[in-house]
Amino acid sequence: MPIEMVGLDADDTLWHSEGHYRATQERYSALLEPWIGAAEVPAALLQTERRNLAHFGYGAKGFTLSMIETAIELSKGEVDGHRIHVIIEFGRELLNHPVELLDGVPEAVEALADDFRLALVTKGDLFHQESKIAASGLADAFERVEIVSEKDVPTYARLLGAAGVDPPRFCMVGNSLRSDIAPVLALGGAGVHVPYEVTWAMEHAEVDDTHPRLDRVGSIRDVPAAVAALAER
Amino acid sequence: MPIEMVGLDADDTLWHSEGHYRATQERYSALLEPWIGAAEVPAALLQTERRNLAHFGYGAKGFTLSMIETAIELSKGEVDGHRIHVIIEFGRELLNHPVELLDGVPEAVEALADDFRLALVTKGDLFHQESKIAASGLADAFERVEIVSEKDVPTYARLLGAAGVDPPRFCMVGNSLRSDIAPVLALGGAGVHVPYEVTWAMEHAEVDDTHPRLDRVGSIRDVPAAVAALAER
Repeated sequence: MPIEMVGLDADDTLWHSEGHYRATQERYSALLEPWIGAAEVPAALLQTERRNLAHFGYGAKGFTLSMIETAIELSKGEVDGHRIHVIIEFGRELLNHPVELLDGVPEAVEALADDFRLALVTKGDLFHQESKIAASGLADAFERVEIVSEKDVPTYARLLGAAGVDPPRFCMVGNSLRSDIAPVLALGGAGVHVPYEVTWAMEHAEVDDTHPRLDRVGSIRDVPAAVAALAER
Repeated sequence: MPIEMVGLDADDTLWHSEGHYRATQERYSALLEPWIGAAEVPAALLQTERRNLAHFGYGAKGFTLSMIETAIELSKGEVDGHRIHVIIEFGRELLNHPVELLDGVPEAVEALADDFRLALVTKGDLFHQESKIAASGLADAFERVEIVSEKDVPTYARLLGAAGVDPPRFCMVGNSLRSDIAPVLALGGAGVHVPYEVTWAMEHAEVDDTHPRLDRVGSIRDVPAAVAALAER
């Protein structure tokens, strides 16, 4: 089936993101040492994030609010104003972190742009994602930039409708099986999974690895060839 | 000049918003009474919001982070975990507040939809704005829904380009001279200003009231007639 449009995820597919969240979480855990062992913090934070997802959505601002709330809970209200201020600073640093492209990204995006219409599809804070896209220097390669609140089947269906692309002729490239691959396969499209070094706990998912329209590669450098092969199948 | 597309702002044009922020700010000011008089809080909070705008953008999550930061500053770090938790709860309440349409909105939107292509143009948290649009029951009237990080000349130019609308044939309706009216007039479009009962300090602006393509009405009910009159000029 020929491929007309390729969608690319952004965080942890084009540039580093989860690594910054992990590093922030380590500093955050150390900050709560007077009240709780660092090893216990991530699970408590994840629980708060899950609870808050329906209120805050994805992104660094909601993450920061969840860090503050978890600190209050874990310290039984004893956490002091100075530490809360440090947590807000963590959030600001996450929002202002320079964009670091993954190795091989500019070449891979350029190669894909030669053969396909390109869409960037990402979720998170609108303002933060726009800043990162602008800083990446990649915006011009993309016909469409879609910042969405959730990456599920209705979102991809709406996006492909607006672009005038038949779902089977769409291939999504990303590091998250749950957000990038599963909904697109469900619509009859194709997917190339490029795992990142770490995966956020909320992005874990089970996807049938033997799906005929799914490929997995070790690096973004291998994506153009993988898409071309999927287009031949 | 005929009008082809009408853009409508959402917060404080279609539904109440700033009133909720004001009410929250009053409760927030009362919470800081041990350290500072309630009358001094709004100016300090506004200063934090201005400083944080480049990091957080618009919306209730950034507002909540600014409230927390201001509380720490004004209390010289003494604000306790319980009060911080109450502030986070203020933020969650803002995000979950039921959508209350302004009087006459459904009728006005319906009348406009009979004669023009409609676009909803709003800024703020992507996730929050999407929730409000869904809850408003108005989404089907709009050909385009644009949630943007800033409402300035480049944003409107991009939006009109994507919709294939010549700027002089666009009329924007909203409560903010700075965000809804001035940039559209600058592009050669038309504007109908519908002041809301309160205006956020950051939205104040000076606009030439005698501009030939600007009208001001007292209620959304008067908007269809105002747009029709602008189209005749």
